Amino acid sequence: MKSFLPILSWGRSYDRSALSNDLMAAVIVTIMLIPQSLAYALLAGLPAEAGLYASIVPILLYTVFGTSNALAVGPVAVVSLMTAAALSTIAEQGTMGYGVAALSLAGLSGVMLLAMGLFRLGFVANFLSHPVIAGFITASGLIIATSQLKHVFGIDAQGHNLLELMLSLAEHARQTNWITAVIGVAATAFLFWVRSGLKPLLQRIGVAGAVANVMVKTGPVAVVVATTLVVWGFGLADHGVAIVGAVPQSLPPFTLPDLSPELLGQLLIPAFLISIIGFVESISVAQTLAAKKRQRIDPDQELIGLGAANLGAAFTGGFPVTGGFSRSVVNFDAGAQTPAAGAFTAVGLAISALALTPLIYFLPKATLAATIIVAVLSLVDFSILKRSWGYSKADFAAVLATIVVTLGLGVEAGVSAGVGISILLHLYATSKPHIAEVGQMPGTEHFRNILRHDVITDPAIVTLRVDESLYFANARYLEDVVQKRVARDPAIRHVILQCSAVNDIDLSALESLEAINQRLWEMGVTLHLSEVKGPVMDRLQDQHFLEAMTGRVFLSQYEATQAIALQTASRRKA
Amino acid sequence: MKSFLPILSWGRSYDRSALSNDLMAAVIVTIMLIPQSLAYALLAGLPAEAGLYASIVPILLYTVFGTSNALAVGPVAVVSLMTAAALSTIAEQGTMGYGVAALSLAGLSGVMLLAMGLFRLGFVANFLSHPVIAGFITASGLIIATSQLKHVFGIDAQGHNLLELMLSLAEHARQTNWITAVIGVAATAFLFWVRSGLKPLLQRIGVAGAVANVMVKTGPVAVVVATTLVVWGFGLADHGVAIVGAVPQSLPPFTLPDLSPELLGQLLIPAFLISIIGFVESISVAQTLAAKKRQRIDPDQELIGLGAANLGAAFTGGFPVTGGFSRSVVNFDAGAQTPAAGAFTAVGLAISALALTPLIYFLPKATLAATIIVAVLSLVDFSILKRSWGYSKADFAAVLATIVVTLGLGVEAGVSAGVGISILLHLYATSKPHIAEVGQMPGTEHFRNILRHDVITDPAIVTLRVDESLYFANARYLEDVVQKRVARDPAIRHVILQCSAVNDIDLSALESLEAINQRLWEMGVTLHLSEVKGPVMDRLQDQHFLEAMTGRVFLSQYEATQAIALQTASRRKA
Repeated sequence: MKSFLPILSWGRSYDRSALSNDLMAAVIVTIMLIPQSLAYALLAGLPAEAGLYASIVPILLYTVFGTSNALAVGPVAVVSLMTAAALSTIAEQGTMGYGVAALSLAGLSGVMLLAMGLFRLGFVANFLSHPVIAGFITASGLIIATSQLKHVFGIDAQGHNLLELMLSLAEHARQTNWITAVIGVAATAFLFWVRSGLKPLLQRIGVAGAVANVMVKTGPVAVVVATTLVVWGFGLADHGVAIVGAVPQSLPPFTLPDLSPELLGQLLIPAFLISIIGFVESISVAQTLAAKKRQRIDPDQELIGLGAANLGAAFTGGFPVTGGFSRSVVNFDAGAQTPAAGAFTAVGLAISALALTPLIYFLPKATLAATIIVAVLSLVDFSILKRSWGYSKADFAAVLATIVVTLGLGVEAGVSAGVGISILLHLYATSKPHIAEVGQMPGTEHFRNILRHDVITDPAIVTLRVDESLYFANARYLEDVVQKRVARDPAIRHVILQCSAVNDIDLSALESLEAINQRLWEMGVTLHLSEVKGPVMDRLQDQHFLEAMTGRVFLSQYEATQAIALQTASRRKA
Repeated sequence: MKSFLPILSWGRSYDRSALSNDLMAAVIVTIMLIPQSLAYALLAGLPAEAGLYASIVPILLYTVFGTSNALAVGPVAVVSLMTAAALSTIAEQGTMGYGVAALSLAGLSGVMLLAMGLFRLGFVANFLSHPVIAGFITASGLIIATSQLKHVFGIDAQGHNLLELMLSLAEHARQTNWITAVIGVAATAFLFWVRSGLKPLLQRIGVAGAVANVMVKTGPVAVVVATTLVVWGFGLADHGVAIVGAVPQSLPPFTLPDLSPELLGQLLIPAFLISIIGFVESISVAQTLAAKKRQRIDPDQELIGLGAANLGAAFTGGFPVTGGFSRSVVNFDAGAQTPAAGAFTAVGLAISALALTPLIYFLPKATLAATIIVAVLSLVDFSILKRSWGYSKADFAAVLATIVVTLGLGVEAGVSAGVGISILLHLYATSKPHIAEVGQMPGTEHFRNILRHDVITDPAIVTLRVDESLYFANARYLEDVVQKRVARDPAIRHVILQCSAVNDIDLSALESLEAINQRLWEMGVTLHLSEVKGPVMDRLQDQHFLEAMTGRVFLSQYEATQAIALQTASRRKA
């Protein structure tokens, strides 16, 4: 029971000190979340209030089911972008159908996450390699920033990849509303300065580091207040500046997602990708923060927590959510001690949704766009290209494909291409394993690659060390390498396969070994194995292969060569 | 040049002895191939002569480009079935469009094989595991045999999987033409007897083994002659017995495949699957036969040979071809010494196509169906299910899925399911690698699993031996295992990862190691590595990780524990 409801564990020891720490963190996070939630709703193509709703019940549910003490769940940039991309083919932004489809997407994603958690399928997320994620986040950040330029300049522009967006922006550039543009560009510039220039300035004038950090995080709130006042004071809404407008004063409503099979069918793949990306983003933040306090995150339970949060979003007017990086770090830095901090944040946002929404009537969309642009551009980091190039060309190819396909075709194609290419390149690499011919280092019992070292070999014996588990993808390759080596040299009488790095032998590989044994026998050559690992030997034990094998299995490579040399010598004598 | 035209190698040393051996083999193979070619054309849904045409120019081209001395190329059962399945959605059997689409399929497959050969992409065929192939061939054999029952009973029946076929047969059972049924059942029974009962009988009456073997292979020819005479003599064609009918007396015609993008698009996946299945079947036969004479097959050159053969089929009225098992074995047993035997077979078949086709006018289709049924049922072998069950559940799952999906949904779905599931299960297995906590065997420098052996451990040091290469799919799993182990036990001060079985560390795994190092550092725990392999160390050398690592890299696990114990002791003294 406790493992499914982590709240039962930490809830029992909850005390006054934890309460005050959690409350403090909640106040800071709430202030930070208000503009962020509104902005990400805008990015997802939804009305501003959806962002608030998506931050209330989901946080509460994560508090009950999640295992991280610091994770803050709600709308995040990349998932909001993926939501907009998924819904773009289903309904027009601003229609009822669009909002309902967002609920369905959150619901479907919630069910998937829950199912993965209950059936312990979280490992599927591992197929998103680190470089692919880095490339995907960078490319998504660029697309998000570009997509927000339309709000900064007050024009219409559509598109779900960089090319479409740039063309559309260029096409509509003439429509630019110059008042909007001044507000948007000024807000963006100010926020960039807050990120880079404010903290050093504050510290120079003697503000303490921690206080300076909090002041920096309130930058977006300051911009929101300032630009709202300007638009209201000068009546700029009448001059074409797009504003958030009327937002209902209400707690999150009870909503029902559309569960028609046709819609769910269309949303299946986007929901899966959103679930995986959201989970990976969330779990890496949670693990990083947990490690700082020597705590542990249970990935399967995290899936359940995020699944519950998304189901909550589906039934309370939200859209897909996950654990966000920046808000979780703020929560952690502000001293959040238990998941209760999240619950208090939810209360804070609920009060905002009830009481503060009239105040944002004149908030310009350009300001929200500016906060998004500044937030996501910090995610854009092409250094992964350089790093992967230096480390491994396979990783580089996967990153490059992810970035190029995401920018060129959109988020779903991009992440699929990245995963597909990393798997293919991994399979390719293991399908042509490193197989070294080895010989004995003079005066030792060690055997090394004959190409790298000056070693002793016997013309009648060839030893091949296989540096990979043997399975279907490389079984025939091994057959070919052995055949090639033996066909080249008629002096060979013994082949030893040194299996010290073979962690597994599957049925295909076993059959290939049988084929190798049979073919070598027909050539008058004996097959031996050496240094077979315990678990591999356990498996081979019951198999006909060991009896059919013309040679023996030796515990060590040294023993193998000694025994064979002895046998050959005694035969020569006879 | 020689590597692309193997004929230049063996052609120079061609002599009289090779000539007479090759001629002898060609005569026997030609006699065997005539009914087989006609039958497989029927199976593919094409007119009988297409089978002859598909055996002439393709063999000649393989002679020029192939590397096997014994492989006989032409229509084979499984590929013919796949051809029929692929074309069924495109055109009606018996129409012009159907025959032209068969040419396109052969052409496309030829181009793919050639491309794979030129770009050395033959490894993709390795992803068909042995058990998946065995399951696929068994299921295909059942489907083929069932599909031929309609000819045996003279009824109409359609379907591309077992269920469809059985339902269709049951539905049309009343149409049974009883004369056809008598001929068909008798021919089938006779051929079964030839396979199982004739050879022992012949040997008992003193016929030499080799002669008896050849007589057994001529069984189908005898049935063809006998049933043709019966149908002709009694005028049974007028009583509803379906016959082959008029076949043009002609050399293979020059034909042009339809290259419209729409058709090629539809044929893309079937052509790919046919290429891969055909290549795998062909190469395994070729390698088995080559090994018997200590010869070598070059897989990439084989792709070129088969590609040329299929292109040849596309332009001379054929359909997809590959190296067949039974005909190649006959060719080998009959003494074929060089690929020239194939060329002579082609000549023999060309003469047959010119001169003998009037003789098969009254050949009943039921006889051809009987030869197919008897040939393919010898391929049906469910023992792979038992074998894989005993060896590895992952292999079993892949075989079972292949058989069930092939029987239930057809050949394309079946082979795709088999490959997909084997890859997924392999990735799953490597995504949760065996990680053993090890301790020192008393009195030795060896370290073994603490769960299996009575070993010495230090409460401040935990050593984890990772039995798998580290890559994206298991990188986070390792993070989790380390975190879990260390969080459980506050006494731990050092973590050693023993990397003796780690053949590779990709960028994701490197970043996971960095994360592990960082998190352990935050918990006051030092990370060390031991027994890192040469190539892995080469890669890590230039990386920031080695500098950032809190501990050291030790050559041996023993050295690691000694050094750490010493360090701890000296610190305690101080």
